[in-house]
Amino acid sequence: MNHPAPRAVMPRVLPDELLSGLHDLFGERLSTSRAIREHHGKDESSYDPMLPDAVVFAESTAEVAHAVALCNQHRVPVIPYGTGTSLEGHILALSGGITIDLSRMNRIVAVHPEDLTVTVEPGVTRKQLNQEIRDTGLFFPIDPGADASIGGMAATRASGTNAVRYGTMRENVLALTVVTSDGRVIKTGTRAKKSAAGYDLTRLFVGSEGTLGIITGVTLKLYPQPESISAAVCSFNDIASAVNTVIVAIQAGVPLARVEFLDENGVKAINRHDKLSLPEKPLLLFEFHGSASSVEEQARQVQSIAAEHGAIGFEWATRPEDRSRLWQARHNAYFALLQMRPGSRAISTDVCVPISRLAECLLEAKADCEREQLVHSIIGHVGDGNFHVQMLVDPADPQDIARAEAVNARMVTRAIAMDGTCTGEHGVGIHKMAFLVEEHGEDAIDTMRAVKHALDPHNIMNPGKVVRW
Amino acid sequence: MNHPAPRAVMPRVLPDELLSGLHDLFGERLSTSRAIREHHGKDESSYDPMLPDAVVFAESTAEVAHAVALCNQHRVPVIPYGTGTSLEGHILALSGGITIDLSRMNRIVAVHPEDLTVTVEPGVTRKQLNQEIRDTGLFFPIDPGADASIGGMAATRASGTNAVRYGTMRENVLALTVVTSDGRVIKTGTRAKKSAAGYDLTRLFVGSEGTLGIITGVTLKLYPQPESISAAVCSFNDIASAVNTVIVAIQAGVPLARVEFLDENGVKAINRHDKLSLPEKPLLLFEFHGSASSVEEQARQVQSIAAEHGAIGFEWATRPEDRSRLWQARHNAYFALLQMRPGSRAISTDVCVPISRLAECLLEAKADCEREQLVHSIIGHVGDGNFHVQMLVDPADPQDIARAEAVNARMVTRAIAMDGTCTGEHGVGIHKMAFLVEEHGEDAIDTMRAVKHALDPHNIMNPGKVVRW
Repeated sequence: MNHPAPRAVMPRVLPDELLSGLHDLFGERLSTSRAIREHHGKDESSYDPMLPDAVVFAESTAEVAHAVALCNQHRVPVIPYGTGTSLEGHILALSGGITIDLSRMNRIVAVHPEDLTVTVEPGVTRKQLNQEIRDTGLFFPIDPGADASIGGMAATRASGTNAVRYGTMRENVLALTVVTSDGRVIKTGTRAKKSAAGYDLTRLFVGSEGTLGIITGVTLKLYPQPESISAAVCSFNDIASAVNTVIVAIQAGVPLARVEFLDENGVKAINRHDKLSLPEKPLLLFEFHGSASSVEEQARQVQSIAAEHGAIGFEWATRPEDRSRLWQARHNAYFALLQMRPGSRAISTDVCVPISRLAECLLEAKADCEREQLVHSIIGHVGDGNFHVQMLVDPADPQDIARAEAVNARMVTRAIAMDGTCTGEHGVGIHKMAFLVEEHGEDAIDTMRAVKHALDPHNIMNPGKVVRW
Repeated sequence: MNHPAPRAVMPRVLPDELLSGLHDLFGERLSTSRAIREHHGKDESSYDPMLPDAVVFAESTAEVAHAVALCNQHRVPVIPYGTGTSLEGHILALSGGITIDLSRMNRIVAVHPEDLTVTVEPGVTRKQLNQEIRDTGLFFPIDPGADASIGGMAATRASGTNAVRYGTMRENVLALTVVTSDGRVIKTGTRAKKSAAGYDLTRLFVGSEGTLGIITGVTLKLYPQPESISAAVCSFNDIASAVNTVIVAIQAGVPLARVEFLDENGVKAINRHDKLSLPEKPLLLFEFHGSASSVEEQARQVQSIAAEHGAIGFEWATRPEDRSRLWQARHNAYFALLQMRPGSRAISTDVCVPISRLAECLLEAKADCEREQLVHSIIGHVGDGNFHVQMLVDPADPQDIARAEAVNARMVTRAIAMDGTCTGEHGVGIHKMAFLVEEHGEDAIDTMRAVKHALDPHNIMNPGKVVRW
């Protein structure tokens, strides 16, 4: 099964009344220029751009509400835009409409250090957030690859390398402010750490990718900056030994903060890119957070578990500069790989399976890539059972792309058969709508669709994404 | 503001076709006897019983689906029943109908120790679960007071004393099997640890209290049994010092497994009931989980923080029997208090606030109880900002009950003003429907109602609970 290509739609003529209404509200912050529309009509997916008919730059929840109410009145699509770093075509204007750029809503609204919470506008990026709260001794752990906006991360249920210890956006959003499809403003929760007060609207909007409402405020959990951090790296002769090391460490209750896997191709790429000399074999990269003695204890425990699984060259990096160098290399892996085939583009997969099936899932994916002679590497958030196969394709060669997409489709089918999911953290967008049906079944998709119809009866909220109307 | 009393409804005559359909399906497991109906028409709330017209004892998801489909066809209410231990009138048959007793669906379906997951039928109780998985070295931490069913705990988003470390049902349910209002069966998720695959149906059904569908299967996260456990207890001259101790410990990143608060009345009650001699002052009871050295380190850290806040008589309980004795006393607190006023019944509140507001919220609640001369005690899951005021009332004295309900209503209003919630863990049922509107506002309630209308168009799923139709 392959994914459907987005339907090409001719540019629409917007109703004058809508345009003049938006102009009254946004003035110079309404744009129909081609350059602005082009910038907002593409993300980091493999799709060609699909442009909105106009873009507005919102500066408040009230402005977003007003804009949505106008669009609702005219039945014109509305697409929220943060940093444009999504990977599955989330922000493409399939049917034209108005893109609401939220990047100017970038204020930290309130920090409550005693409560370990912060409330931000949706355009705040994750790095900006951590920069601005640094003096409180707290931090926000969720780190997708890009410096994404918090609103976009909530909308796509993002995670990253710290999720094994700190969870994903699902676990770390306490409450949202949301503009509904008729332009009303609701608060989905409070700053209470737990609540049994009615339907969980917060979790319903987290991961809804702009299709049920627009997130204009986010209250997040924060965590104390760890007293101590250390990192370690080790290699294995085979993938199964690396994965089993992680399974045993987790079962032993070691509170790993991060544990990332790179296959030998990934290691080769970063060796070349970052001038490292890591053994070109399956590799695990660990990070431990805690008190000085607890970090040392965790690390010793993991070292001994790794040794039992035949680890090679267990190395410590306790100095911040060594840690940073290793993690920087890990973060560069995507770009490092691209340089292995100049002129290529990467297609990235995102399955997530129960960890007991991870080695098998990884090995079958790898064998498939090799059969198809695809230049590839594998990077895994291995503690969560989530990994990305990056396949380098020639963007001008449809057969090359088709081979990579077929590998992805087979991988998804296998992951679902292992009681896993087609997407651990990238979301559905348009790319995975067919996979979503395969994963959940038609009846569950009907339930999702009933929710969509109820909350967005005119199908104006980021239409054509997640579930088919 | 006071809560609405449930509307009394005359017993309904069920359509013959429905009864014969249910009889074909359930045979002797369909009952219309008064004793069975009475048993299923009451919970542990203060409400008078409201009986269903019939009860069926389901043994499989297929049976539940079939029964719901029949009821849907005849527009007859359906109420799921686990152990009957809910506190807010959740299972009362306000409009009659069929109660589906799920207690016979009590099998552990699959344990996956390497993945730290278990899948159970909804009638499995939390104690049964921990008993049955004990040999795996894993445990399930969520512990509401009662030995509730896992299905009921998921339906009410339950938590308990371990939530500060391990989260609530919101964080610990991975996937559900749900029978929808038209009798279809959906799976809301997979065993993958994280997923960005579409709307979060799992979290939508968790806490929906049987009003959107009936939970017939639950996949849960499990945790390694801690290598070491220790407990400690200390007293304070005032409530604020106790709360501030907890705030500082959490901010310092101490991974407290449990931290419970008792006011001096609660301590008096357990001293008398359990023959203890704890100082009759505000008290904190801690539990630490981890490796032997980490537990010791946590405990030392907390002891020093408590000392800075004027703690009195910090005492350790590392031996299992001492720990059990203390925690048993804590668990007995509810019954211990009842004995302080023989013949009385307890009305329990459940607000939860950001922890920085907790001392203030507790003190105002206490002052209000004292003004109203109510016999009361306070028990708090203080690390979460959640506490219960138990007020002893004479069940035959409407004025006494009204005084207690008025104290509760004022407490909820104050908690909401502090950005907290009317219910941390007991749920809404019928008791807190008005508070829910006060907390979320009419527009957010409209959003919840739109979801209810979409997923239960004939209002047959536990009607009259959570949100008004």
